[in-house]
Amino acid sequence: MVGDVVIGDYRDLDTLRAFARGCDVITFDHEHVPTEHLRALEADGIPVRPGPDALVHAQDKGVMRAKLDAIDVPCPRHRIVSDPADVERFAAEGDGFPVILKTVRGGYDGKGVWVVRSSKDAAEPFRAGVPVLAEEKVDFVRELAANIVRSPHGQAVAYPVVESIQVDGVCDTVIAPAPGLDSELAGQAQELALRIAQELGVVGHLAVELFETADGRILVNELAMRPHNSGHWTQDGAITSQFANHVRAVLDLPLGDPRPRARWTVMANVLGGDYPDMYYAYLHCMARDPQLKIHMYGKDVKPGRKVGHVNTYGDDLADVRERAAHAAGYLRGTITE
Amino acid sequence: MVGDVVIGDYRDLDTLRAFARGCDVITFDHEHVPTEHLRALEADGIPVRPGPDALVHAQDKGVMRAKLDAIDVPCPRHRIVSDPADVERFAAEGDGFPVILKTVRGGYDGKGVWVVRSSKDAAEPFRAGVPVLAEEKVDFVRELAANIVRSPHGQAVAYPVVESIQVDGVCDTVIAPAPGLDSELAGQAQELALRIAQELGVVGHLAVELFETADGRILVNELAMRPHNSGHWTQDGAITSQFANHVRAVLDLPLGDPRPRARWTVMANVLGGDYPDMYYAYLHCMARDPQLKIHMYGKDVKPGRKVGHVNTYGDDLADVRERAAHAAGYLRGTITE
Repeated sequence: MVGDVVIGDYRDLDTLRAFARGCDVITFDHEHVPTEHLRALEADGIPVRPGPDALVHAQDKGVMRAKLDAIDVPCPRHRIVSDPADVERFAAEGDGFPVILKTVRGGYDGKGVWVVRSSKDAAEPFRAGVPVLAEEKVDFVRELAANIVRSPHGQAVAYPVVESIQVDGVCDTVIAPAPGLDSELAGQAQELALRIAQELGVVGHLAVELFETADGRILVNELAMRPHNSGHWTQDGAITSQFANHVRAVLDLPLGDPRPRARWTVMANVLGGDYPDMYYAYLHCMARDPQLKIHMYGKDVKPGRKVGHVNTYGDDLADVRERAAHAAGYLRGTITE
Repeated sequence: MVGDVVIGDYRDLDTLRAFARGCDVITFDHEHVPTEHLRALEADGIPVRPGPDALVHAQDKGVMRAKLDAIDVPCPRHRIVSDPADVERFAAEGDGFPVILKTVRGGYDGKGVWVVRSSKDAAEPFRAGVPVLAEEKVDFVRELAANIVRSPHGQAVAYPVVESIQVDGVCDTVIAPAPGLDSELAGQAQELALRIAQELGVVGHLAVELFETADGRILVNELAMRPHNSGHWTQDGAITSQFANHVRAVLDLPLGDPRPRARWTVMANVLGGDYPDMYYAYLHCMARDPQLKIHMYGKDVKPGRKVGHVNTYGDDLADVRERAAHAAGYLRGTITE
């Protein structure tokens, strides 16, 4: 088949149905397709992977927290709050402010998330008319991610646990594997992700974003059921990429080896800067580092928008990090040499 | 842009022109587009890379041999022959029969090539009405290929020299790098390919197929100016694949690092066998070897037709070869375990 790409509104069931008619199976690269539309497609006989009963846990943070509580997965202290006064009570029930507020649906990359320092700051999240989840602000030492892939017949593979470095609520850098991570804790994180996938019936890629605390615990921050920014390093750094394994899982094919191909792989996101045309920066980066892997998304460049990412790998972590950071910074225009 | 694929006859200039109107630059994945059509596109102002003046050397074996003679590149003894009696004379000028006859245009994968043992066998090649090239049958110890990529601004990269194993005139297995190859001879082969690319004005990927003789010489067998079967191993075995570097060269971007990522990489072609449906064999191969890379072309399976290839890599050449041969054989149906 040629040109079998359909552009349409993922919130419109008729559009989805017209598209789905030609498909053996459906999957996603974001989790915002309405749960009820996915149920309708399933009722039409189209396999949806991950299915809506699993995906809802990545769509609705309230449903996610309730389920993780029910299966004894360690999470930050949390509950649904009804108004700013209730946020005040939530703070008082624990260590006080600051408190994290999140709308249960629709957020990503720091959108739909507020850090509030008093009940006076807490009005904004309630304006959207979506339930609001309050969470303690965890005093973490760093953020980790455990990426696994699970197939309908129950095979699963676990990628090495990575460190994810956020800047202004947006993922900036991912280091694979997480430097200096205690191997027992790494194993716990992988087992936790595998258990969550099994309990929730996930098919495909599951990213479990984690906080590592100073006292050596891990707490689940977020779930994503699709190839995830914390797994982009696998394109150039793993034997089988997250994209290949997600598709294998969705098609119920045997999964590929998730092990790394290099001692260290670093992914850095390319955000838009002040210059809409990255072409000459792109030439510079390719010429400076012939091993660099640049993955651009074909999006218009806007300040702060994720428009691509770069991967570097090698034996020397400092060198690998410098090369990734240089390329991402040069493309954005924050490094000019 | 979405769905920007045009299916048409590459021998029809109007089709080519309509397609080329939307293109910044044109390249190929085979060399059979008529030279005069490429000249017409160039005259229309569309950059064609490699250009027709270079590409003609991969399209016409007579032109290729004449040029390689002119620049002192070692080749098998050869000349254009006019009829079976002339083949007899060509044999007598050297070591006699067998002699290789090739139509100068249109052959591939053993098609358009005959091994003749007497002038009585030599009628067939002349029937197509295309000039016929006679060549000595070289007593080679093995076949090698030197793959390089050259950009319009003159940057070039050389991949490791590989060994290519043919079965019935069709490439069966490629081993990267060529096992036990004298490093000086490997360097000579790379330099020869770089020199040919420069002399012929090649832009993009150039594969130079070589004979290695018992007395340690290399002779040029064929040229291809496009990503080539002897470079498919680079998809999974090199830092930058031949496909990425060909496109970089065509776009005049800085080239990527051609070095290998594994000690050994082996490519085995998947030929069609007696079973048109390879799906269950595909499942078996993936399950047996989670590191295996299977690349299928989406073609209908016909006996002997190249429908895909597999890549394997690792530190132990015997193991890497066994895995590639097993997968290719299992997919074809010649191995059933």
